[in-house]
Formats: sequence, C-alpha cells, structure tokens
Amino acid sequence: MGNEQKVNVAIVGSTGYGGVELIRLLLNHPNVNIASVISASSAGAPIADGFPHLNEIMCDTLDGVNAEEIRRKADVVFTATPSGVSGKLVPELLDAGLTVIDLSGDFRIKDGAVYTAWYKHEAPQAELLEEAPYGLCELYADSGYAQGQRIISNPGCYPTATLLGLAPAVKAGWIDPASLIIDAKSGVSGAGRGVNLGVHYAELNENFKAYKVNKHQHIPEIEQTLSEVAGTPVTVTFTTHLMPMTRGIMCTMYASLTGNYSEQDFISLYKEHYAGRRFVRIRPQGQWPATKEVFGSNYCDIGFAVDERTKRVTVISVIDNVVKGAAGQAIQNLNLMMGWDEALGLQLTPVYP
Amino acid sequence: MGNEQKVNVAIVGSTGYGGVELIRLLLNHPNVNIASVISASSAGAPIADGFPHLNEIMCDTLDGVNAEEIRRKADVVFTATPSGVSGKLVPELLDAGLTVIDLSGDFRIKDGAVYTAWYKHEAPQAELLEEAPYGLCELYADSGYAQGQRIISNPGCYPTATLLGLAPAVKAGWIDPASLIIDAKSGVSGAGRGVNLGVHYAELNENFKAYKVNKHQHIPEIEQTLSEVAGTPVTVTFTTHLMPMTRGIMCTMYASLTGNYSEQDFISLYKEHYAGRRFVRIRPQGQWPATKEVFGSNYCDIGFAVDERTKRVTVISVIDNVVKGAAGQAIQNLNLMMGWDEALGLQLTPVYP
Amino acid sequence: MGNEQKVNVAIVGSTGYGGVELIRLLLNHPNVNIASVISASSAGAPIADGFPHLNEIMCDTLDGVNAEEIRRKADVVFTATPSGVSGKLVPELLDAGLTVIDLSGDFRIKDGAVYTAWYKHEAPQAELLEEAPYGLCELYADSGYAQGQRIISNPGCYPTATLLGLAPAVKAGWIDPASLIIDAKSGVSGAGRGVNLGVHYAELNENFKAYKVNKHQHIPEIEQTLSEVAGTPVTVTFTTHLMPMTRGIMCTMYASLTGNYSEQDFISLYKEHYAGRRFVRIRPQGQWPATKEVFGSNYCDIGFAVDERTKRVTVISVIDNVVKGAAGQAIQNLNLMMGWDEALGLQLTPVYP
Amino acid sequence: MGNEQKVNVAIVGSTGYGGVELIRLLLNHPNVNIASVISASSAGAPIADGFPHLNEIMCDTLDGVNAEEIRRKADVVFTATPSGVSGKLVPELLDAGLTVIDLSGDFRIKDGAVYTAWYKHEAPQAELLEEAPYGLCELYADSGYAQGQRIISNPGCYPTATLLGLAPAVKAGWIDPASLIIDAKSGVSGAGRGVNLGVHYAELNENFKAYKVNKHQHIPEIEQTLSEVAGTPVTVTFTTHLMPMTRGIMCTMYASLTGNYSEQDFISLYKEHYAGRRFVRIRPQGQWPATKEVFGSNYCDIGFAVDERTKRVTVISVIDNVVKGAAGQAIQNLNLMMGWDEALGLQLTPVYP
Repeated sequence: MGNEQKVNVAIVGSTGYGGVELIRLLLNHPNVNIASVISASSAGAPIADGFPHLNEIMCDTLDGVNAEEIRRKADVVFTATPSGVSGKLVPELLDAGLTVIDLSGDFRIKDGAVYTAWYKHEAPQAELLEEAPYGLCELYADSGYAQGQRIISNPGCYPTATLLGLAPAVKAGWIDPASLIIDAKSGVSGAGRGVNLGVHYAELNENFKAYKVNKHQHIPEIEQTLSEVAGTPVTVTFTTHLMPMTRGIMCTMYASLTGNYSEQDFISLYKEHYAGRRFVRIRPQGQWPATKEVFGSNYCDIGFAVDERTKRVTVISVIDNVVKGAAGQAIQNLNLMMGWDEALGLQLTPVYP
Repeated sequence: MGNEQKVNVAIVGSTGYGGVELIRLLLNHPNVNIASVISASSAGAPIADGFPHLNEIMCDTLDGVNAEEIRRKADVVFTATPSGVSGKLVPELLDAGLTVIDLSGDFRIKDGAVYTAWYKHEAPQAELLEEAPYGLCELYADSGYAQGQRIISNPGCYPTATLLGLAPAVKAGWIDPASLIIDAKSGVSGAGRGVNLGVHYAELNENFKAYKVNKHQHIPEIEQTLSEVAGTPVTVTFTTHLMPMTRGIMCTMYASLTGNYSEQDFISLYKEHYAGRRFVRIRPQGQWPATKEVFGSNYCDIGFAVDERTKRVTVISVIDNVVKGAAGQAIQNLNLMMGWDEALGLQLTPVYP
Repeated sequence: MGNEQKVNVAIVGSTGYGGVELIRLLLNHPNVNIASVISASSAGAPIADGFPHLNEIMCDTLDGVNAEEIRRKADVVFTATPSGVSGKLVPELLDAGLTVIDLSGDFRIKDGAVYTAWYKHEAPQAELLEEAPYGLCELYADSGYAQGQRIISNPGCYPTATLLGLAPAVKAGWIDPASLIIDAKSGVSGAGRGVNLGVHYAELNENFKAYKVNKHQHIPEIEQTLSEVAGTPVTVTFTTHLMPMTRGIMCTMYASLTGNYSEQDFISLYKEHYAGRRFVRIRPQGQWPATKEVFGSNYCDIGFAVDERTKRVTVISVIDNVVKGAAGQAIQNLNLMMGWDEALGLQLTPVYP
Repeated sequence: MGNEQKVNVAIVGSTGYGGVELIRLLLNHPNVNIASVISASSAGAPIADGFPHLNEIMCDTLDGVNAEEIRRKADVVFTATPSGVSGKLVPELLDAGLTVIDLSGDFRIKDGAVYTAWYKHEAPQAELLEEAPYGLCELYADSGYAQGQRIISNPGCYPTATLLGLAPAVKAGWIDPASLIIDAKSGVSGAGRGVNLGVHYAELNENFKAYKVNKHQHIPEIEQTLSEVAGTPVTVTFTTHLMPMTRGIMCTMYASLTGNYSEQDFISLYKEHYAGRRFVRIRPQGQWPATKEVFGSNYCDIGFAVDERTKRVTVISVIDNVVKGAAGQAIQNLNLMMGWDEALGLQLTPVYP
C-alpha cells in the first residue's frame, strides 16, 4: 500500500508515554501514515529532540493543537491527552470532520454525574458520551461496535485487565458479582510522564506501595461494564499498587463461586468466550501469567486458581499497560473502525527477557 | 557488658539470607556474642570469603554442624535451616543442652498431619511441636510465652505480616473470619539464596508473577493462629506474588465488616491492641504503608481503608521479610526468652532512600 | 512471499537468550520461515512450555541436534551455542550442506593459539577459522564479505559496541592506538540463561560490579580487528562490569588525540564513515547515548566528548546486547549473505519507556 | 552518656537525602543528640509527615533556618544544603557561634576563581575557604586537621571514592599523574531529592546513561587534592554515569604504571597507607569490590588489576554515596573534630542482600 493510499493519522499528546507508544506501534502498521505528531507543550521542536530513541526514525516536528490544521493533514486522530482536556478538545476535532479515538477517560463513563464524582471535574456533553462506544475490543467486537463510528472511547489500563479477566465468568453466572475483589498492580509508566516526588526513581526503586485505595477513577468504569454484563448493579472492591517496574499490570481477582466449577471449567469457558480473539491467551491449568510474558505486546494473558476449601476462584490477568492498556488497544479499535483485521500492525512478540 | 558476660550464640545456616542477616543484627546487639557461625556446605572457609561485605567485620571461619561442638561454644542457637532439616537437627541440639530459636517452618504447625500435608515430608516429634511456642511477639508477648523456653518457633514471613494485620480485627469480631482474602507480595530474598531459573535476574527484573496460588505452606500457619484468635476454624484465600525487588513483603488483606466500623475505629482498635509494642506502627487515616518505609528494620507498619460502598475493610501491612519476617523477630524472641527489653539490638531506623 | 518461497532457517540453542531473541526477530522477517527450533537439553518439549510469552505465537516442538535432520528442514542454521560447542558442531552442519551463521565466539579469533589462550579450550580447525568472515556488518559491508558465504562468524556483544565506536577514529589516525581504554558495562542477559549465584536477583539488584578485569575473552576479538584497522598491533585495557538491568551495553572509551580534533570533527568523520549504514546513529554535539534509547532494537548509538584540557576523546557507544550484540546482527548477516536489504526484518523502533 | 551530656547538633537540609541519612546515622550515635531538624521549605511540619519511615522514631517538627535559633538549641550544625546556599548561610552560622560541618561543595575548592568556573556562581569569602579544612578523613586524619576547627568542608561523593582509590599510588609515584582516567558511576540518590524528568523512574529503570562528561563540578575538587598529593598539577579525564539503582558509587580508574608493580605490591602499599583507618578495606588479589558490599555503611572498598600487557593499573573503589560520600563521612568528621573515636556511631555492617 503506497503512502498515498494509507490512512493519515494524527496523535495529540505525542510526548506522553501513550502517545510515544502510538508512534512506535503505528510506524509498524502497514495501512497507516503518521501525518502529524502533536504536543501542546513542545510544538515546534523536532520530536527526536526529546525522544532520542526516535533519531533517524521519525524526523517530524511537533505540531500545535489546532483542529483545522489537524484536519488538513489527517483523517483520524488519537487523543492521548489527560482527562479533562479531551472532553473539551474532542468536540472541536469532530466538528472539523475528524474521526477520533480517545485514550483519556473522558468518554468512558456514560453517566455524567458519576464521571464528575470520580474525576472531580465537569463531564463532556451527554450526546457525545452516548455516541462514543466503549472500545473493549474482545468484549464487543462481535457487535460491530466500532465500524463506521466518529468517536471511540478507548478503555483504561486497569479496566482492560480487570474486565477481560472477569466478564466471561460474570456473564456465565459462575461467580457472585457481589463478591468481587480486585487487587491491581501497575508499573510506573501508568502514572504518566509528568514529574513529582511520587515517581522519583529513588522513591520507587526497591519499593512497593498502595495508592488511591477504593478511590481510583477506574472503579466506575469497571463497575459500569460489569453491571451491564451481569445485568445487575455491581460494586467492586478495588486496590491499586505501584510496582518497581516500568510496564505491566497484573490484576489478581477474587470471587465466590456459585457452583462447583473447576479450573478446567474456567479454562474452557474463557477459551470459548474468547474464541477467535487473538489477543487473549488463556493459560493451562496450574500456570499463571507474569507481566513479562506480555511486555511490549498487545496480549492479555489470563490464568485461574480454584480454591475448593474456600469456594473461591482467583483470576489473574496481565497486560502491558502501555500497549493493550493504551496504544495497542487504540490501534485495535482503529482496525475495527476501518474494517481491517483487528491484529493489523499489532502482531508483536513480547520482548523477553 | 564485657564479652565474658555476654550470651554466646551460634547460627546454623549462616550462609543463607536469614543467617547472614542474623549476623548483621547480632553484631549490633549489646548482650550477645556470636560464638560460632555454622554452615553444612561451606564449613572450613572464612565467612568473609563468600560474603565480602563482612570483610574486616567478621573474621570467623565457618564451623560444621555438630551439636556437641556447638554446645562447647554457645548457649543459644539460631537454626536458619530449610524446613525438614530443622526437624531433625533441633532434637540433637536440645539434647546437647542448647536453647534453640528455630527459623525454619518445622515447629510452627502443631498438628503433624497438617504439617505433612503442606510441607510434603514427615513432621517433627509431637512433644516438641507442643513444647515450642509460636513466637509471634506482638500477639503473645503479654503471656510471657518465651521466657525460660528451651525452644521457640519463629514465625514465617508471610504469616507475620498477615497475622499482625488481621488478628486485632478478628479478635474484636469486627470482620467476618469466613471472608478473609490475603493478596501477598514478597521480594526475592524470601525465596532464599539457592539458585534456579526462577530467581535469575533477567527473569525477574521488570516482571511480576504469582506463584503457589492457594498452595503456599504458610497457609496452615496463618489459619492455625487465626482460628485460635477467632475461636472458630478459619480458612483463608491466600495468593503469593514475587516482586522485582530484594526485601519487603506487603499483604493487602480484604474482609467483610460485621458492623459500621470506620477507618478511625480501626486505627484506635489497633493502637490499643498494640499499645507498648514498639515494632508495630499504625498509620494515620488516608495513609498506607510502603515496603521501603520498613526496609532494613524490624517494624511492621499497618494501614486501613474502609469501603462504605462494599462494607469491606482493606488492611495493608508491610515488613522487611529478612528482618521482622526472619532474623529480627528471632532476636526479638531471644530478647523475650532472656527477659531483656524486646527491642534490644533492634532499634534500627529504616534505610531510606 | 509465500511460505514455500521463504528461506527455511533453523536455530540451534533456541532456549538461550540469543536463540529466543532470534525467534522473536525472525517471526517478524518477511523472507524467512523458522523451520526448526533446536535445543539439546529440551528436545521434545513444545517451546512455549518453557517460554510462555510464545504461547499461541509459536507452537513448535523443540528438535534435537542432528545435522542431517536439520538439513531436511532448513537451508540456513543459526548456532546460538556456547563457545566450544559450535567449534565441533559447525563442521557437521557444513558437511550436511547447511549454511551457518555462528553466534558463539568459536570462529572469531583467526589465530588458534590466541583462541586457546583466552577461551581455555581447543580451537576449531584452521581452515574454517579462515573461511568464516567476521561479520561486523558496518565495518565490512562494502567489501561484500557475506554474500555467498557458507559460514559467517557473528561478532561478540562487547566487540560490536567497542569496534563500532573506535574503528573510524583509529582508521583515520585521529587517536593513538596505544592509548585505548575501554570501560564496558553490560546488562545481565549477556551472562546467558544459565543459573549460578552470580545471576541471582538478590545478588545483582541494587548492585554494580566489575568482573573478568583484563581477562574477558572478548579482548582478543577487539584487538584483532583494531590491529587490522590500525595496520599495527593494538593492545587495549578492557574492563567489564555487570549492571542491574536486563538488556544493554555501554562502552565508555578513552583515547589520546593525535591532533586538535573537535567534537564536531568526530561527528563528521563518523557520519561519513557510516554513511548509508542504517543501524549506526551518531549523536549531535553535547549529547551522549543511553542504553534505553536502543532497547529492543538493532541500533548502535555513538556520542563524543573531547576534553581539550587532557587532549583526550571519550567515545560512548550503546547497543542492545541481545539484538545488535547477538540476534539482530546475526539476521543482518543473513540479509547480507542472501543479498537482501540489510535492514530487512530489523526495522525495530526501540521500546521506550 | 545522658542527653544532657551529649553534643547537641542541628541539621540544615533535613529533607534532602543527605539530611535524612544524617538523621538515621545520628540516631545511632552515642554522643549526639539531634536538637533540631531544619528545612527552609517544610518548616512547621512534623518530619515524619514527609518521611513515614521515621514514624514513632523521630517526632520533631521541622524548624526554619535561623542562625540565632539554631544556636539556642545546638552547638554543631550540619549544612546539607545545595551549593550556593551554604556559601551564604555558613558565615551567619559561624557568626552565631556555631561549629559547622558543611556537606555542600561550597568550601571545598580553595581557589575562588576555579570554584566559580565550575559551579557557575560566586565563591564564598576567601578567608572561609582557607579556614575550612577539606575533610577527607583517611587522607588527613594523621595531621589532626579536624580537631578544634570551627568549620570543616565535607568532601563530595565522587571525589571521596576517587581520591581514596588514587592518592596512595599517586603519592608513592607508582602511577603517572598525567595518565589518570576515571570512569565513575553513581546511583540516583546522588542526584538529590529534587524532581525532574531525569530522575523519573520510567526514564531511569533499565537504563544507563552518561552525563556531564568532562564537566562535572567534582573535577576541580579531585584535581586540587591529587595535585597536592602529587606535588605537581594534575588534570584528569572524568566521566560520570547514572546507574539504575538508588545508592552506590563505583569509580573504575585507569593509570599508567611507572614501574613493574604487581597487584600484590598495590595491595601492600594501600594496606600500609590505610593502616589503622577502619573504613577503607583493601580487597585480596583477584577480587574487586561491588557496590552492594558497602550498601548502608561507611566503608570504601578498593581492588586492583594490573595489566602487564599494557602496563596499566585499574583501581576500582566503591562507596555508599549517601554514607561515606555524604552523611557518614560528615559524622566521621564530627568525631575527629570532637576528638572521639572516628568510628563512633558508624560501625554499620553493610545491608546484604
């Protein structure tokens, strides 16, 4: 496919970790041309100045944020912007005739009041919340949710790992939705590229800490989808921890069984549920995934442990938060939106060791 | 106190991580003289050969394992030996007239059949299991359990963090003992100094993994004490993870509340329960402990989060697994056994950063 | 290109870090089909059993080491075997009609006596040493050294970083070859996947250590090529260190200037020398490369500092030891051998952060 | 010694890494009472608020910077302040009648013009520069430099490791002072507790980078002392690197031999030179120190490699930059100043693993 036939995309927020990963992945995408890399704070500078790993790979200068200018260069725009920023920017981009895949949290929560309660600022306009499908590919791909959309809301990193790990069992009624406890751990890149004492190397190295216990803004996103899947309101206990590593999320999830389901039953249920979905891998009995096994890739690996003594199941899911939890899934959504193979440009073998 | 007045101690298993930490801490103890460092595998070599950090600090040559010889040099012996080894060695040491503080798991489980079910080898003789008190200092110090004992069984690392975090609430009846879920994470030193692919740096760095889910041998130790505290049999769900760091354990623990207890209620309950115990520190409301905050010290820090939406409490406890989870608590047991101040030689400020 | 038109390759030593990286990279190569993954120690097991990151990506079972069987499946074989093993295996592979790219050190040193002095075992047969060109692509690509060869000897990781950093200045006569001092640092993956206390996570984390000072077997490899480039025997001072990280080599190299060359002069000299070579990137004045900037990629980045006070230049080069220092360069050699674009399958953007 | 008999000390800059380590170490010092912890930026807050590892250990509230108030509480003050700040503050403290041990670089360079050239701001007044001895304990202890001084200038971290490693050989005339090349590596804590992208965990983890090549402000400090030791002006090549770890400095140093000195000769020379100095440990032949072997302690370990092929010696020295490179050495200077045993309060076994 020549450059003239490729889809031109722009990336707003190119200097964040999500944005710069979009660049890495889209450079590898056969149908896409990166037409504009955009940064409000660094416009005018060559992107390789701040990101020497891109030397001689990407020579582009960063553009400013201007909907009309973006429209002249691109058809699709990824908004890898902080929550609160996207809510205001996306309507302008849509008005300019662009198609948007939004990586912020702004369009995920469909109830504006819930959004405001957790995000602590005003929600975007209700029609857009309604218009933007929640792009958790493996849950909704069969519905054709993405094709032809003007805007897709890309899921959060924790919700991706959590929902892929819990939804099949909740849907099947095998676990009690009132019993869900999610112990989530993330690498530091999830906190973004902004600087504060909390991400200082000397503070995080050889350290493990909990944060925002029961207060993380991804909680309502998880509950919204689980409630929909369960057909009843679901409330979860959700703890987030920071791990001394760069990339990776593990969710260790606990639920009470509603029947005598074995580990092998869970494996079969999930394999069937995710049949044909190439980015979910179910681990064989007695094995649990580790974050390194998905490092740099778009996979979500899931394993199970059933405790017959306590009648509980432990579901363990891992993703690379920067790929499946952000940039990779956004490209997967682009693929679905364009009617392409969902794995196009995303067939990345995890980097090991 | 001159050397002639000090208590002479020996350390069996001096070349393991627990043993070498005993050396570091006991060198700092005003009432103790390290009379013999012992290693079955390296006897005859100066200990500093394998541990250059001890150069010019400890010039001793490693002794072999011989109960009579140990008795000639020492009065008290720490057995920092693998489980299965202590069970056989300790009776010999006792017969030789030594007093023993055992860091293996061999004397913790009071029911030999349970021991065998989890440890997969034969239990030590029943009378010794009965004789050896379980030395979780902060739970039992008031009972005078240690004073005058011939043998004390030092708790495991995970059980120490778990039990200190759960026992007061279980005892008070504030949480439902049937609801306990423990998500535990440990640094790699907890796996010991033996080599295998699982502890290779390139396999663990930038990695986080679960292991022995529902199968860890510390589970019956936790359940034994919680059952005693609750006055009813308690079964827990317990997941262990390996973190990419050297020292530190965090237990994130979940339980259903039996009443409307607030975070401040928990703080008060625990402060009262641990009044006078210098190594448990309760965090103020809205703060949770991080492993680095106890690194190199004998502290166990505990914090709480009450989720009013789900009527659950999250208790977070951290320890340095090599200190409070092994060598430090063993010395604390020595102090109690000898009738000394329990903090003697253990007033270590955590190493930060 | 259909599978039937692709070149079939085999990988001996597939379960080492070099071998498993060959798999990752070759899966991405448009002209190659991985026809056999081979391991003497694990033959018969599915490779994904030991490498769960390959689940659903590579379903192959590991083959044993048998030249005739390899020949039935493949045309080209990569030998990612320990030194000493390749020396014996490669003649068999050649006799069977295979073409070999050897990643061990066995065919790099052209003087068998020198090989034995440093590697401490017998050298391969002299004719093969002579036949096998030293495949440092950027130094020799113009000579067409690789095309049509039966066997290519892939350079070592340290020599790759060292020689790419020093050769242009030595060749130009700008630095005194008698003054060369190389301070080299490597991530732990360079030590291989074998287990010993030296690679235990708890021993290496938060640690930095020197090893094999003046004794590393890569010294004669460096001296052989520098002597050839200088046209006079060159002896170097070479120190190797282990860094607490997985991938990456930095060589910080010192040399006395033979004239008043500026940093900008060096930049120009190297840019000219490496014109058209896509995997060497010269950093602008005042910038020095960091290992993360080449992580996961085939790049070698080089920067300079001229100290006018001491009339010395400091040259800093970085590579990913597993890619440009092993698997990536081996594929680059395959590309040159087959007459393909040298970057085929190797256009990997470094993984950042 | 009762509190009333102890020396009262104050710490300015208590919330930096050097200051907080002074607290850790001084809490362990039998002759010292910490009378005031001071921070310009956080005055009024309990120190444990920002440093939870000090909970229940130190309950003090941070004081502001006021010379008269400090004098009312303390006799000796440690100034762990940034360079530029100390130069202005110290005269006030001295005027108030306090004795000062300064950890900034402000009083190390005795030539004000050289100071300004490297530090880029005005030098302190010349009389104070002259008055303040350079407190590199092991080089000058025999001269009694510290006893009775009003002000001591504590050496920098890199200079401590460099000078202890090079001075004996330079003094003995065994190495050519014109040939000195120092390849220095530091953990991140050396960069201080200030936040910027350069210390972001995700930028430094799995990364190794050079910085300030030939431009580090510790260069004139090293040259000043080496020139004095050599009796001739010495200019060094000095490269600094950032390692992905928290604490530790290694200097790998290269020099041309002036005669046929063996490794054993160097070991004997250094052992004699440092006879009676308890914090320098010389490694036996064939062993080189690793940073972890001094972690948390005041030791400087030194090893040697003589390369007979190139007639060069490689000297490798390691320290914990926060202890021997800052707080520990400052306390050693206090001890010498007060006429106490230099090791008082500093007999710290390195924390391993």
